[in-house]
Amino acid sequence: MKNFNPIKGTYDYLPNVAKVREEVRHLILKNYQANGYNLIDTPILEHLDFLDSSEGGDNLKLMFKTIKRGSKLDLSKVNLTEADITEEGLRYDLTVPLARFYSNNREKLPVPFKALQIGSVFRAENPQRGRNRQFIQCDIDVFGDSSINAELELLKTAVETYEQLGFEELTIKVNDRAILNSLVLRAGFDEKDLGEVCIVLDKLDKVGITGIMMELIDRGFDTEHINKLIEILNWVLNKGIGSLDLFDVDEEKLNNLKYLLTSLVELIGDNHFVKFDISLVRGQGYYTGTVFEIYTEGFSGAIGGGGRYDNMVEKFSGKPSPVVGYSIGFEPVTMLMLENSKQFASKTNLALVYDEQDDIIEVFKAKDELKKDYNVSLYLRVKNMKNFYDKITSVATCTISFREYKEGKEVKILNA
Amino acid sequence: MKNFNPIKGTYDYLPNVAKVREEVRHLILKNYQANGYNLIDTPILEHLDFLDSSEGGDNLKLMFKTIKRGSKLDLSKVNLTEADITEEGLRYDLTVPLARFYSNNREKLPVPFKALQIGSVFRAENPQRGRNRQFIQCDIDVFGDSSINAELELLKTAVETYEQLGFEELTIKVNDRAILNSLVLRAGFDEKDLGEVCIVLDKLDKVGITGIMMELIDRGFDTEHINKLIEILNWVLNKGIGSLDLFDVDEEKLNNLKYLLTSLVELIGDNHFVKFDISLVRGQGYYTGTVFEIYTEGFSGAIGGGGRYDNMVEKFSGKPSPVVGYSIGFEPVTMLMLENSKQFASKTNLALVYDEQDDIIEVFKAKDELKKDYNVSLYLRVKNMKNFYDKITSVATCTISFREYKEGKEVKILNA
Repeated sequence: MKNFNPIKGTYDYLPNVAKVREEVRHLILKNYQANGYNLIDTPILEHLDFLDSSEGGDNLKLMFKTIKRGSKLDLSKVNLTEADITEEGLRYDLTVPLARFYSNNREKLPVPFKALQIGSVFRAENPQRGRNRQFIQCDIDVFGDSSINAELELLKTAVETYEQLGFEELTIKVNDRAILNSLVLRAGFDEKDLGEVCIVLDKLDKVGITGIMMELIDRGFDTEHINKLIEILNWVLNKGIGSLDLFDVDEEKLNNLKYLLTSLVELIGDNHFVKFDISLVRGQGYYTGTVFEIYTEGFSGAIGGGGRYDNMVEKFSGKPSPVVGYSIGFEPVTMLMLENSKQFASKTNLALVYDEQDDIIEVFKAKDELKKDYNVSLYLRVKNMKNFYDKITSVATCTISFREYKEGKEVKILNA
Repeated sequence: MKNFNPIKGTYDYLPNVAKVREEVRHLILKNYQANGYNLIDTPILEHLDFLDSSEGGDNLKLMFKTIKRGSKLDLSKVNLTEADITEEGLRYDLTVPLARFYSNNREKLPVPFKALQIGSVFRAENPQRGRNRQFIQCDIDVFGDSSINAELELLKTAVETYEQLGFEELTIKVNDRAILNSLVLRAGFDEKDLGEVCIVLDKLDKVGITGIMMELIDRGFDTEHINKLIEILNWVLNKGIGSLDLFDVDEEKLNNLKYLLTSLVELIGDNHFVKFDISLVRGQGYYTGTVFEIYTEGFSGAIGGGGRYDNMVEKFSGKPSPVVGYSIGFEPVTMLMLENSKQFASKTNLALVYDEQDDIIEVFKAKDELKKDYNVSLYLRVKNMKNFYDKITSVATCTISFREYKEGKEVKILNA
């Protein structure tokens, strides 16, 4: 007996799971579209040099790469390097291909351009709960709009989508990386260390203030700067956004952040929590301004997040364009929905069982009739229907015999 | 200025095209489901040894393969082979992963099991019109049903789906590979040459009878056998299925084929053509019985096809299961729909233009109101809206100013 498992970290989805995944995907797509984001699509395979030049951090180490084909692959060469034998890469997110897409097509697109993309991405992670090697991302992004209302519309759209998926009492955490940076500088750190310090700060919810202090000390930063930074952060964490007025941060940025928070409270505050969180970083190096994450009761990780990355398009193409995006975490969202047995209203699946001697044209007519109310599939009655009835619950929820149907009997639920 | 094209043979899909592709995908999925096929999903990455052992013919040469990662990749070794450096393959169709899926999960699935799968597959073809390196397949397959009614339901479902996509006057070509084989044997060919002879016969519509004779001669087959085969084929091509009675073919198979053809005529013959075509082969070596293809006016290639492959599951898993499947050609179908500007009814996209001094909460309220009738997205008015209006047609078809909306003015179509 051979092993037919899919490759490590990937999954076969059986009908009951595949159906929920598809319905979640479709609902997200529809609500993104209802809010005016435009569906686009990019290939799964990307230029390797392009992916390598993206600021993907650890994701670059986790890339799947394809080998060269035909005469391009010369294995007889000595001192072969990986670059000698690789050709393309599988995209590790949708943001980097989107930046290429925009650079490639911007002459054809209006400004601002609101994009929506749903697709599979790949990372060779060590598989664990919630870490698949192939997973789906659902992104919306706005190009060419530096107004804070772009953030507001993204977050309102995201919240509306989670609500439609049945999520209640969300917590929306918001921060601004530029403001956080200015606090780190104020504590005495060097500009060049901003990235490293922020990566450490990102761990606050996991290791706490003490853990962060320890790690900053371990990394050899000045104790005076560390103490000052912790003092500032504690102050802001306790006193909230009003306390930022004390620290002489950029006034326009601060006003924008306050405007975003108060507008969010007005728009969605009756049902959800809106929270300023100075410790919110999000890992990626490319964020330049606002960052946000959304949380739900009973799950420790974020179920989505995003932020502003105003430099990426210019870095790739030489032509600047502000961009801000949000990504719903498709995998945690579907996982939670399946765990909580959240159901979508959809037609009942009906198995219409016919006998060998039945007139098949009549059977198809009955099928057409029943299709008005059910998803209907034909099944030939065999001697032993046990295997079928035992396992059908996950696939078809209801069966009817064609003979009984002809006799005018109502459809009866055999499995519920 | 760098080049931002996607990799050779793959495409960026702009909103107007991506939207049609998504709507075609969704319509196919919904109609497959309405007919009781169950959505499943398999990974894009597959075990390389499993793909290599599939009867993929030329497709195996076109596979994208990924390189090993980390310490598994040893480039210092001498006389490296491709097997030393490769780890996974990208699936080249959905049938092979489906056979693995069924072998992996059959204990959990009812018999018969009706599967539906839609996803991207990859082949490193030389790019040309209609030959993409990444393309979508939309398959339905029935496991564990050897009745010819399985074929009938597949074809009825396919025809219904094409109709819903707006295709008229389809031609459904049907053949049985086992019957074709018996004619080839009757002409005097050896059993071992069946595959090769069929591959030549597959070219009939491209090269004609003479072309086929020439190629069979070139390949060194006995002229007497060739003449006899051409004589039989000409006879059957001219006289139709009734003439098969003369050739002593398997009676049950012939009756099944006749039953399929007459049932198809009864079910769909009022609107479409049903045709027995002894020369229909379909390339893949794994077909064991019926094969079929569907054609439409004004396009020379098939827009879908399928057949019965009763040996594949047993070959992989040791446990037999009959299987028959149909695949709608997603790429030719969407190409034809775009060329013929076939439209789906969907909500108009509305750009709601607000001014900087507007109360954003009021603007969002207006958006919510308009969302009942439109897909609505907010746009901040800027000094020069020309670029936006020039290019918006493909994205938003209609704009309204928030000020005019407040004044009770009707939504006006600026671009149609």
